[in-house]
Amino acid sequence: MIYAADSADKIIIRFKDDATAFYNIKRAKIADKAKLNCDISSMVLGYLNENGVNTHFVERLDDEAQLCKVVKHIDVEVIVRNVIAGSMAKRLGIEEGIVPENTIFDLCLRDAQLGDPLINDHHAVALGIVSYEELAEIYAASARINTLLTELYAKEGTTLVDFKIEFGRAEDGSLVLADELTPDTCRLWDVESGEPLDKDRFRRDMGRVREAYEEVAKRLHNALNK
Amino acid sequence: MIYAADSADKIIIRFKDDATAFYNIKRAKIADKAKLNCDISSMVLGYLNENGVNTHFVERLDDEAQLCKVVKHIDVEVIVRNVIAGSMAKRLGIEEGIVPENTIFDLCLRDAQLGDPLINDHHAVALGIVSYEELAEIYAASARINTLLTELYAKEGTTLVDFKIEFGRAEDGSLVLADELTPDTCRLWDVESGEPLDKDRFRRDMGRVREAYEEVAKRLHNALNK
Repeated sequence: MIYAADSADKIIIRFKDDATAFYNIKRAKIADKAKLNCDISSMVLGYLNENGVNTHFVERLDDEAQLCKVVKHIDVEVIVRNVIAGSMAKRLGIEEGIVPENTIFDLCLRDAQLGDPLINDHHAVALGIVSYEELAEIYAASARINTLLTELYAKEGTTLVDFKIEFGRAEDGSLVLADELTPDTCRLWDVESGEPLDKDRFRRDMGRVREAYEEVAKRLHNALNK
Repeated sequence: MIYAADSADKIIIRFKDDATAFYNIKRAKIADKAKLNCDISSMVLGYLNENGVNTHFVERLDDEAQLCKVVKHIDVEVIVRNVIAGSMAKRLGIEEGIVPENTIFDLCLRDAQLGDPLINDHHAVALGIVSYEELAEIYAASARINTLLTELYAKEGTTLVDFKIEFGRAEDGSLVLADELTPDTCRLWDVESGEPLDKDRFRRDMGRVREAYEEVAKRLHNALNK
């Protein structure tokens, strides 16, 4: 949920306990998810800000809300993949868990009616969403975010399998990461056991969803205080 | 149909009258299609050879057969699009006939069981099919082919809307266009009327399929004798 803030160039983003999957076909409430995701996303975006990545995050306001910068949204999603999982495993007919030698960047059109389809750079340019130069900037930022977060999660025994991010443009034209980064939008596996600590526990009815999100928050706190 | 030739580094490709669409769900025979496609593909590949594009085509053997070089096939398809049509219009939720400012190159995995899915460069590299450098070479060759064929078709009032091509590697490692280029694999529209002169007439039950292929052959003959 997004609310107007006191300043016109800021918004308040309020997290929710609702969990949805498969375009809202599956729905539930997960106790404390709002608080946990606000905590996790505040830590992650704050860490990215400190490390020179331009994000929309300004500050955490309370247990479940963040103050963020207003940006002009860019209508693509980038999915960064370090390990094959989820829709990519299905699309390519290969097993989950394979670690490719290269980092995979998927570009998807933000259009829920079309099912946020995979597109490529040429499609995005043809649709007038971005230029090739802007895409190069988006991929460079995505790669930097991936490096930073992979390192951060590794500190406490977590594999960053993949994550989805969206970007926007600030008033001055600069590229801004304008998305949450939580177990709702990242795949996170325990290094030892391979157990998912993310929304796949909800999607796949694996149970202990809240406990997984709590574990991610705990690990991030520890990693940031190392 | 592919047959062994007298020489081990050559094969005989024999064209057929069979038409199929939607992964063989739709099937028919179109009289003279083998002869027409052999004629068209021989003209087009011969023209590309003469213009410095490395193709598998050696010579036409008879009405329905070509002698071609043996290559090691690369398991991707490239679709080059000058005008939005077909699956891309559906995928992006936009109308057929829109002319984008950029040329669109789609990369698909050659895997009929998976439905030859759209992939991107990172997927192809992760699957071990090609390197990023090889992809750059493939796209450069595809762009060159597009320029040459767009010019050739334009001479006799035909728009090259899109086409699908596949590549292979020769013994010496050079990249080779290893595919037919016919109205089965290209979308060709009459410039004046916008009428399709290609397999869409079969796919979409528009009738006059053979006449359209005959028209394409006639126009190519005229264009090449200009």
